[in-house]
Amino acid sequence: MNITLPKITPCKDAELLITLQAKIDNKTKPVGSLGRLEELAIRIGQIQHTLEPKLIDPQLVVYAGDHGIVARGVSAFPSDVTWQMVENFLADGAAVSVLARQHQIHMTVVDCGVNHDFEPREKLLIRKVGKGTADSSKHSAMSYVQAIQCIESGMQVVAELPGNVLILGEMGIGNTSAASLLFSKLENIDVALCTGAGTGLNAEAIKRKTQVLCEALEHHCQLKDPIEVLAALGGFEIATMVGSILKAAAEKRVVLVDGFIVSSAVLVASKIDHAVLDYCIFTHQSGEKGHALMLDILKAKPLIDLELRLGEGSGAMIAWPLIQSASLILNEMASFESAGVSRES
Amino acid sequence: MNITLPKITPCKDAELLITLQAKIDNKTKPVGSLGRLEELAIRIGQIQHTLEPKLIDPQLVVYAGDHGIVARGVSAFPSDVTWQMVENFLADGAAVSVLARQHQIHMTVVDCGVNHDFEPREKLLIRKVGKGTADSSKHSAMSYVQAIQCIESGMQVVAELPGNVLILGEMGIGNTSAASLLFSKLENIDVALCTGAGTGLNAEAIKRKTQVLCEALEHHCQLKDPIEVLAALGGFEIATMVGSILKAAAEKRVVLVDGFIVSSAVLVASKIDHAVLDYCIFTHQSGEKGHALMLDILKAKPLIDLELRLGEGSGAMIAWPLIQSASLILNEMASFESAGVSRES
Repeated sequence: MNITLPKITPCKDAELLITLQAKIDNKTKPVGSLGRLEELAIRIGQIQHTLEPKLIDPQLVVYAGDHGIVARGVSAFPSDVTWQMVENFLADGAAVSVLARQHQIHMTVVDCGVNHDFEPREKLLIRKVGKGTADSSKHSAMSYVQAIQCIESGMQVVAELPGNVLILGEMGIGNTSAASLLFSKLENIDVALCTGAGTGLNAEAIKRKTQVLCEALEHHCQLKDPIEVLAALGGFEIATMVGSILKAAAEKRVVLVDGFIVSSAVLVASKIDHAVLDYCIFTHQSGEKGHALMLDILKAKPLIDLELRLGEGSGAMIAWPLIQSASLILNEMASFESAGVSRES
Repeated sequence: MNITLPKITPCKDAELLITLQAKIDNKTKPVGSLGRLEELAIRIGQIQHTLEPKLIDPQLVVYAGDHGIVARGVSAFPSDVTWQMVENFLADGAAVSVLARQHQIHMTVVDCGVNHDFEPREKLLIRKVGKGTADSSKHSAMSYVQAIQCIESGMQVVAELPGNVLILGEMGIGNTSAASLLFSKLENIDVALCTGAGTGLNAEAIKRKTQVLCEALEHHCQLKDPIEVLAALGGFEIATMVGSILKAAAEKRVVLVDGFIVSSAVLVASKIDHAVLDYCIFTHQSGEKGHALMLDILKAKPLIDLELRLGEGSGAMIAWPLIQSASLILNEMASFESAGVSRES
C-alpha cells in the first residue's frame, strides 16, 4: 500500500529573514531586548512568508488512542482512563479544556483508536482505526496498512480545519511507552535514556517498564523505515498526529508542539520529511524523562520549562499567548521613527 | 520625617496549604503533573486565603523617572528617551502597550520624576517628586524627604486602583544603574557582579559604568537604613514602586514582579518588611546581568526565561496568562470523582 505525501516547502528565505530582523530592530526597544520573543516573531514571519504574520483561528486537536502494551503493566493508570478522559475533555473538565476556554481556542478531540464506543458528539471526531493497538512487545502495534490509514486520517483532519495554527495534544494511557520506543528506535539511543515515569511510576516500576520496552525493541530489531517503525511501535493517536503534522506543514500552518508524545510524532514526521521542523514551535520542555534529550536531537529550544508532564496539549496551550505576543509585537509595536523616540547616542 | 507603613500579614497558614494541595491532587491529572503551575495556584490561594482564588481586574502600572547619573555616560540612550517612551506608552506603541492590549489589561503610567512636562492625559498620573534625580555618584540621588514622598505616593497610587492584582513595570533611562547600586549596597555584593549592559552597552562601556557605580558606592559608604540607601542611590520611579509594593502586599494583592529594576524595588521593600515577598510572584528572569543573582538571593524562582531585558513590565505581562491559568486550574478543573475518572491502580 502506498501513500501520497504532501509537498512541504522549507522556510529558508534569506532575504525575508534580513527584512524581518530589520523590522524588529526598528521597533522602540533596545536591539535584541525582547530576547526569544524576537526569534519567535521571525519564525512566524518565515512560516507565513510575510512581514505581517497573522495567527488566525488556532485549533487545538487532541488525539486519543489505547495501547496494547498497557497489559504489560507499563502505566500507573488503567486503560479505561483514556476514554474517561476523552469524556472529561468533552465535558470541559480536563486541564486542557480549562486552558482552551481561557484562551477561547476551539478544541477537537479525535478518537484515533480508543478501546470504547463513544456517542457521537460535537467536538468529537471518530476516526477509529482499531480498538487499541496490539502489545508491541509481542506483535506489531498495528499493521502497516493501519499506519497508513492513520496518517491519511490525520492529513484529512487538518485539511478540514479552519485557521492557520495547529495546537497538538494527545491522550492515551501507555503512550509514553510508545513515544520512548519510537525515540529509542529511530535515533538508536539506549531505551533507558528514553524512558520515564509517565503518569507517575516509581523507580522500581520504571525499571520494569524499561525491561518491557527492551523486549519490544528486540522483537522489532530488523525494522528501519520510519512508517514501518511507527506501525510496529507507535500508537493510533501518534500515527494520526504524524499525518496531521505533515499536512499542517504542507499548508504552512504554525504547528505548536506539546510535550514528549507530540514530540515523538514530530520526530517520526521529520524522518518522513525533514522540512516539517521548519513549521514546528516546541512550546515547552516536559518533566518526562527523555524529552530534554529528544529536544536536543531535534535542535529545538523549548519556550517554557514549568516541569509540566501532563500531555493533552496543556503545555502548548499555556505557551499559546506567548506565540500570539510575538506576532503582535511584530505587527503592532511603533518604530523609532513613527513614535519619535531617539536612538542610541 | 516619619512614615506610617502599612501592616503586612505573612501568608503562612499551614492548614490552608494542606487543603489547597489536596484540592489540586484531586484534579483529573497525575499528581504533580502540572508542575510549577500547581505551586503557583497554591501561592495565589495562600495570598487570597481561599480555596477559590479569583484574579480580578489586574492593573498594570508603569513607573517612570529620570536619573542624574546618566550625565556620567552610564546608558546607551539619552535621558530624553524616558519621556519619549512615556508618550509611546500612552500612544499604545510600546511593547508593553501591545502586550497589555493583547490581554485586555488596564495600564496606568505614573510620572514619578521625569525631566519633562507632560500634558495631562487619561492613563497618566502625574506624581512628580522632582525633574530627575541628582547624580548619585556625587550627591544623594534624592533627599530622604523625597524618598518618603515617593513611598507615600506609591502607596496612594495602589490605594486608588481597583482589582486585586498589581503588575509592575518601569521606564527610566539610567535605572539599571540605580538598581545595581541598590542591590550591591543592600546585599553587600561586588558591584561588578550586579552591573550589566542595560539598554545595550558594550564590554568597554560596562567597565566605565561599573567604575562610576563604584564611585557612587564609595560616596555613600556610611549608609545602612534601607530608606536612606534608597534615597542616596535609587530613583523616583523605584522609590514610588517600593511604596506601591508595600501597599499592595498590605491589601493582599497578587504582585507580579517584572525584571531587574522592579526586583530591586522589591528588594528594598523586603528590607523594610520581609513579608512583602509572600505576595510577590517573580514572573521572569531578565537577560540583564545581576538579575539571576538577585533572584537567588530573594529565593525566587522565576516562571519564564526568554532572555527579555526590556523592562516596562513586558516580562510580567507576558507571564500574566500563566498566572491566570494557575488560578483557573484550581477553580475549574474536574476532580476524579466529579468526572468519573479512575485513579492509579
